Amino acid sequence: MTTPAEWYETHRELLDRAVAATRTRDYWSAYPESPSKSVYGEEAAPAGEKAFKARLNADFPLGGPAAERVATERSPWGFDLGIRYPKADAAALIAAARAATPAWRAVGPQGRAGVAAEILRRINARSFEFAQAVQHTTGQAFVMAFQAGGPHAQDRGLEAVAAALDATTRGPAEASWSKPQRGGEPLRMTKTATVSGRGVALVIGCNTFPTWNSYPGLFASLVTGNPVIVKPHPGAVLPLALTVLIAREVLAEAGQSPDLVSLAAEAPGDGIAATLATHPDVRIVDFTGSSDFGNWLEANARQAVVYTEKAGLNTVVVDSTDDYKALLRNLSFSLSLYSGQMCTTPQNILVPAAGVRTDAGVKSPDEFAADLSTAIDKLLGDPARAAGTLGAIVNDGVLSRLTEASGAAGVVRTTGEVADPQWPEATIRTPVVVKLDAADDKVYTREWFGPVSFVITTESTAAALELFVETVRHHGALTASVYSTSPEVIEAARDAALDAGVHLSENLLGGVFVNQTAAFSDLHGTGANPAATAALTDDWFVSGRFFVLQSRRHDA
Amino acid sequence: MTTPAEWYETHRELLDRAVAATRTRDYWSAYPESPSKSVYGEEAAPAGEKAFKARLNADFPLGGPAAERVATERSPWGFDLGIRYPKADAAALIAAARAATPAWRAVGPQGRAGVAAEILRRINARSFEFAQAVQHTTGQAFVMAFQAGGPHAQDRGLEAVAAALDATTRGPAEASWSKPQRGGEPLRMTKTATVSGRGVALVIGCNTFPTWNSYPGLFASLVTGNPVIVKPHPGAVLPLALTVLIAREVLAEAGQSPDLVSLAAEAPGDGIAATLATHPDVRIVDFTGSSDFGNWLEANARQAVVYTEKAGLNTVVVDSTDDYKALLRNLSFSLSLYSGQMCTTPQNILVPAAGVRTDAGVKSPDEFAADLSTAIDKLLGDPARAAGTLGAIVNDGVLSRLTEASGAAGVVRTTGEVADPQWPEATIRTPVVVKLDAADDKVYTREWFGPVSFVITTESTAAALELFVETVRHHGALTASVYSTSPEVIEAARDAALDAGVHLSENLLGGVFVNQTAAFSDLHGTGANPAATAALTDDWFVSGRFFVLQSRRHDA
Repeated sequence: MTTPAEWYETHRELLDRAVAATRTRDYWSAYPESPSKSVYGEEAAPAGEKAFKARLNADFPLGGPAAERVATERSPWGFDLGIRYPKADAAALIAAARAATPAWRAVGPQGRAGVAAEILRRINARSFEFAQAVQHTTGQAFVMAFQAGGPHAQDRGLEAVAAALDATTRGPAEASWSKPQRGGEPLRMTKTATVSGRGVALVIGCNTFPTWNSYPGLFASLVTGNPVIVKPHPGAVLPLALTVLIAREVLAEAGQSPDLVSLAAEAPGDGIAATLATHPDVRIVDFTGSSDFGNWLEANARQAVVYTEKAGLNTVVVDSTDDYKALLRNLSFSLSLYSGQMCTTPQNILVPAAGVRTDAGVKSPDEFAADLSTAIDKLLGDPARAAGTLGAIVNDGVLSRLTEASGAAGVVRTTGEVADPQWPEATIRTPVVVKLDAADDKVYTREWFGPVSFVITTESTAAALELFVETVRHHGALTASVYSTSPEVIEAARDAALDAGVHLSENLLGGVFVNQTAAFSDLHGTGANPAATAALTDDWFVSGRFFVLQSRRHDA
Repeated sequence: MTTPAEWYETHRELLDRAVAATRTRDYWSAYPESPSKSVYGEEAAPAGEKAFKARLNADFPLGGPAAERVATERSPWGFDLGIRYPKADAAALIAAARAATPAWRAVGPQGRAGVAAEILRRINARSFEFAQAVQHTTGQAFVMAFQAGGPHAQDRGLEAVAAALDATTRGPAEASWSKPQRGGEPLRMTKTATVSGRGVALVIGCNTFPTWNSYPGLFASLVTGNPVIVKPHPGAVLPLALTVLIAREVLAEAGQSPDLVSLAAEAPGDGIAATLATHPDVRIVDFTGSSDFGNWLEANARQAVVYTEKAGLNTVVVDSTDDYKALLRNLSFSLSLYSGQMCTTPQNILVPAAGVRTDAGVKSPDEFAADLSTAIDKLLGDPARAAGTLGAIVNDGVLSRLTEASGAAGVVRTTGEVADPQWPEATIRTPVVVKLDAADDKVYTREWFGPVSFVITTESTAAALELFVETVRHHGALTASVYSTSPEVIEAARDAALDAGVHLSENLLGGVFVNQTAAFSDLHGTGANPAATAALTDDWFVSGRFFVLQSRRHDA
């Protein structure tokens, strides 16, 4: 056994560094993002693939031999996983979670952070296994699955650990209070402060980023003193099942109940997320996914604090640039990466009717749309490289939107099929670009999750900024971006982004893309517009998960 | 004109000290609580009284000469105030508040804290006028009205300013990010962070502590960048109208729109609180008052973050003591102070059937109840001193509960009338004590706001702690207290308080009372039980009022 206090000592330097990074918000990363042998060792990649393959068509080692089991996963690359998970019993999971809580409260913030850091260390050591699991549940290409599903997700998890540790240790555990009295001895008291979790936490994972989007809520709840039930998307169970398995192993070694972290797998249509989320003992809900279910949770899980990340209208305002080629290159990559199946992929690209002023002359909206389409063609010209950028289409919903958009009026670039010899059964598609007018708001104020983007002509750049503010205020957005060589336009875009309530990227022309945020530096999402309720990771995201309770007494 | 930045410089030392105090939580107070001439000067008391009297039966100087007016206040000490306030127009208040917001956002956290500190300075300088206003709207006796309505409320306000300033300046306004690239120059970006308020804030005041309970929300919202509409209780308008008047004066001097703080006075029955609280542009609601309306707000003001402080079952567990006289003295004062019209006054006093072990022998529940009644008699024996402790009954609701309780089975001490020659029209009453059994839960699980307490016999101290946990988990509480000479019982009571989710006072035998909390040290309330949603003042109380929005760009 290694006690939580001992894990804290083991990881103290890392945790101190992580807390410092959340405060300074400069560049820092705890887990190397390169899947290279020089970092993770010669054997890591084949060992990860072997471990993944050994899981296929077998009972996953959770839940006991007699458990009823469900197998719901199919790789978007073209095969059934056949992994059988224990089918969850909501009442039993909640009862076990509650029973485990008092001992976890007694551990205190540092010990809980130490346990969490050890869980992350073991997850990191198995990043290649996670990469396989993420690739074959989300359809991400391998390198992206490794990075976004592995080290980047681990960094977001550690960021949440750091934010939770910081927030729960800001006040003193014990304070001395001495109030002067006129003509007498001071009144003296000692005051003890104890961090107490809000209650059972539920994390509802999504199909596209099962680890990246779940780790912040999972680790924030755990470190603030709560047991966590992890409800994966039926299409992406394995990455979270592995996470739960590792967490339970570390918790048990630390002398805690493994039921502090449990898995709630379900058959499609079971609706266990709704059952769990509205249970009186579930007091925290984290959700990533559709606006429909996110809004339902916010309206119905009234006994809980609900953190959601939903969908929105990610917007790019294009005014002018001094490097047109770089702009097209950067934007076409953002639209193509993982087939636009990121909550951060741009959808609405606003250009002024008078055209975009560039180093290659003024480009009319028609020319701009054509040039963007050509840039996408060029980026995806080589099929093998294309598959590595696009990944596979994750589900039929994305495919049907893609079909709908391809048949729309104003299509400038239609979708195409890409064949990947390694995965002949995979559904791989290139992005659609549609040209619209500002008046076509019925089309572009819907979210078209997947590889569908609109080049929208507005009267002027000022009108584009107004449209940006109006649509994002009402429909939300996770990202926004502006291109302009004019300091006045940039200033106006910053004000517009504040009015709209969204983070802004300015003139991205190189190796940073609007769809990507860096843990410890970039806030991801914000409660300032309807697409989410908090940022990863701000104080609001962690401070609702615990209370500080005081006891006070006179000094002897 | 004095700019917000200049006000910040003026008050910087105070603000730094206040932030430090919220972190260390030791004893600190910014505003002297003694209404003595040596502190506030010879002229302060008569000047305050004169200023108060000049307000009576006149238009309050807000809202312009043509405004429709309402006069709704009657002093519980026996006369109508006759002060005429402008009747609020909800849509106009909201529109004015929104228009004032962008310039306030641009001020930044420090400037906003500077303006808030200056508002508090001017409020403090007029503490005697506030004392009159609080006395004659709440029924508090003068010294309590001075302290709780003046310096103590100001301290709670400054604590919220400090918490808001700390929370909005934790992250850097600008960060440099430099990510190493293999075989190339690092990616370098500059990231700007801007604090942006959630939106229009509404503060709904209560009848009994119009300033103390409103200042935390008011100042927390203001400093985090939001305009604030203050909706006073129709019976206690003046203390908040004065606050609004002073705030508007400082804001205008600072070059900001005075409409950042406005008053929403109403005629009884107008229901403007509900109208405002559910308006789409109102994004923050602070409320102190009944559980009924608080729960309604939580269920219906869905577009807003709602902070409520409602009612509960404040509980005392009496196991044993080594100073029985001091225990009775302390507890009888807690029950009598302001006629139990504090949200923190104990209601349910749990004693074991086998009796309370004391330095004067074992006291059976009957003996304990009788001794407590006698202690109250003794405390209130002198009518002039009694009125100074009890104050006046604030409204008919309290009086009718008092009448109901006086007729109940098990009354040990019935209520009595107290005459105050200075205020012959005032309604002054002594507390009722009723003896119950643990089985009488229908009676004691209701909140009896006012001077009504129950001595409840439980099977044992362990059973008392169980009853405490169960009732507080379900019905909430703002305070809890335990008396025991046994370290094991104290330990069990601490665990019980954590399980119940309430702050605990242990063995209060001297000059500290369970109903009182000290700003900067004691947390008041907690979201851990149903009586409130947050503590004054924890991170959760401030972090929902703003967002940090980033913009990022490559370095040139």
